[in-house]
Amino acid sequence: MNITLEQAEKIITAAKEKAIAIHTQMNIAIVDSGANLIAFARMDQAWIGSIDISIKKARTACLFGKNTGVIGELSQPGGPLYNIEHSNGGLITFPGGVPIKNNSGTIIGAIGVSGSSIENDHAVAEAGATALSIFA
Amino acid sequence: MNITLEQAEKIITAAKEKAIAIHTQMNIAIVDSGANLIAFARMDQAWIGSIDISIKKARTACLFGKNTGVIGELSQPGGPLYNIEHSNGGLITFPGGVPIKNNSGTIIGAIGVSGSSIENDHAVAEAGATALSIFA
Amino acid sequence: MNITLEQAEKIITAAKEKAIAIHTQMNIAIVDSGANLIAFARMDQAWIGSIDISIKKARTACLFGKNTGVIGELSQPGGPLYNIEHSNGGLITFPGGVPIKNNSGTIIGAIGVSGSSIENDHAVAEAGATALSIFA
Amino acid sequence: MNITLEQAEKIITAAKEKAIAIHTQMNIAIVDSGANLIAFARMDQAWIGSIDISIKKARTACLFGKNTGVIGELSQPGGPLYNIEHSNGGLITFPGGVPIKNNSGTIIGAIGVSGSSIENDHAVAEAGATALSIFA
Repeated sequence: MNITLEQAEKIITAAKEKAIAIHTQMNIAIVDSGANLIAFARMDQAWIGSIDISIKKARTACLFGKNTGVIGELSQPGGPLYNIEHSNGGLITFPGGVPIKNNSGTIIGAIGVSGSSIENDHAVAEAGATALSIFA
Repeated sequence: MNITLEQAEKIITAAKEKAIAIHTQMNIAIVDSGANLIAFARMDQAWIGSIDISIKKARTACLFGKNTGVIGELSQPGGPLYNIEHSNGGLITFPGGVPIKNNSGTIIGAIGVSGSSIENDHAVAEAGATALSIFA
Repeated sequence: MNITLEQAEKIITAAKEKAIAIHTQMNIAIVDSGANLIAFARMDQAWIGSIDISIKKARTACLFGKNTGVIGELSQPGGPLYNIEHSNGGLITFPGGVPIKNNSGTIIGAIGVSGSSIENDHAVAEAGATALSIFA
Repeated sequence: MNITLEQAEKIITAAKEKAIAIHTQMNIAIVDSGANLIAFARMDQAWIGSIDISIKKARTACLFGKNTGVIGELSQPGGPLYNIEHSNGGLITFPGGVPIKNNSGTIIGAIGVSGSSIENDHAVAEAGATALSIFA
């Protein structure tokens, strides 16, 4: 099961609406269940340094089927996954990456958002990931 | 002068329509005038190996202000730019990358397309790049 | 708005003067608003390991519009941006990178300095970044 | 024996004058005898894709003590150094890179120039490399 481009575009639209609602400019990346990029949008004036971060958050959330922040808690010094960020060409493990699931709970992709505080990044990613039920 | 996300999305829409019209599934990448990704879409069933190629085509067209195929003619064995592909983290110099210009002729970004023959890739990129006049 | 080479060279001159005044040998890198290198100078006897660090500091300050040290405070273990250094081909988040702004406060580039203590690195970067007003 | 920053800056000044005289905008990189960057300048409006190419040309000329174009003749299909460009993190072997020698003929660094035709790139690099005698 894989996310379609049409679904990815609806997710990006929902994420952009949330970003605008909370007065932020975001980079928004969607990957499929193979962690490969399917859609991306950078809002005007969003940091260009966040392009790569949003894509890495989406990839990280997909590769391990977890919110990126969950992995970030485990990758701290002394933690069980210390410095896991060195794998897979570079992971980003702070909040803003969220798996996207279908109605059966199967992961069909992930969204990564970067451009503001991690609270805002996560809120926008969550808004995108849950927009899926609209078209389920 | 830089392309906006709204412009980039219109260009992707035009490119997708062309891709559908010629019965292909494409990866379509748009970069701004600094060669940084602004929007991306992978049509369902498009090759995942073409994600990176489409982005590199867009970057190549932007970095040198030329259709990628023009650079590819110069980078052949014995040509003046032989193996230029080794620069800038990897270039793609076969057709499918086209600069995007505003009405003044200034380069404001570039489109890269990959997923079919180079003739089809270029045709879809051209359809995207020239869609700009719609909103000029 | 982008920094010009003439401006970048004046900034490097000011940074070198400061480096000499505090008896250090520095690597000094200037990037434009797209985080692309525009000018660089390595003072005689400066560490060659600091070439890459100075460029990465300039890129980091530009990509996020902040002094590198500010990002470094947020990227510590337990912090909100822990291990952000894995993005964008490698960031450097300790002090020595400073955005360069024009009189309107718009970021037109950034300076990165490496070769001594982080206090000295930052002092030299600051001397460069504020030299802008000379020619404003 | 290594090039000094003062020498490198004089070489860049000479190269810029030549670039202006032939109506081009160039990226100009100087490396020391260890192939490490010592000075760099990107003229306004020069291609940003040529930043990396100019640095790689300087490194290539230094690493093998030859004009880059000489190596490019040997790296062609069927040639003795076929695809040597894959080594050392990426080489550029078309003209525009020239070793810099002191009066004893010892290589003390190299210059790499990119931004126009390979004939112009080489002419500007040559103008820089031979400016050394001014201060020999």
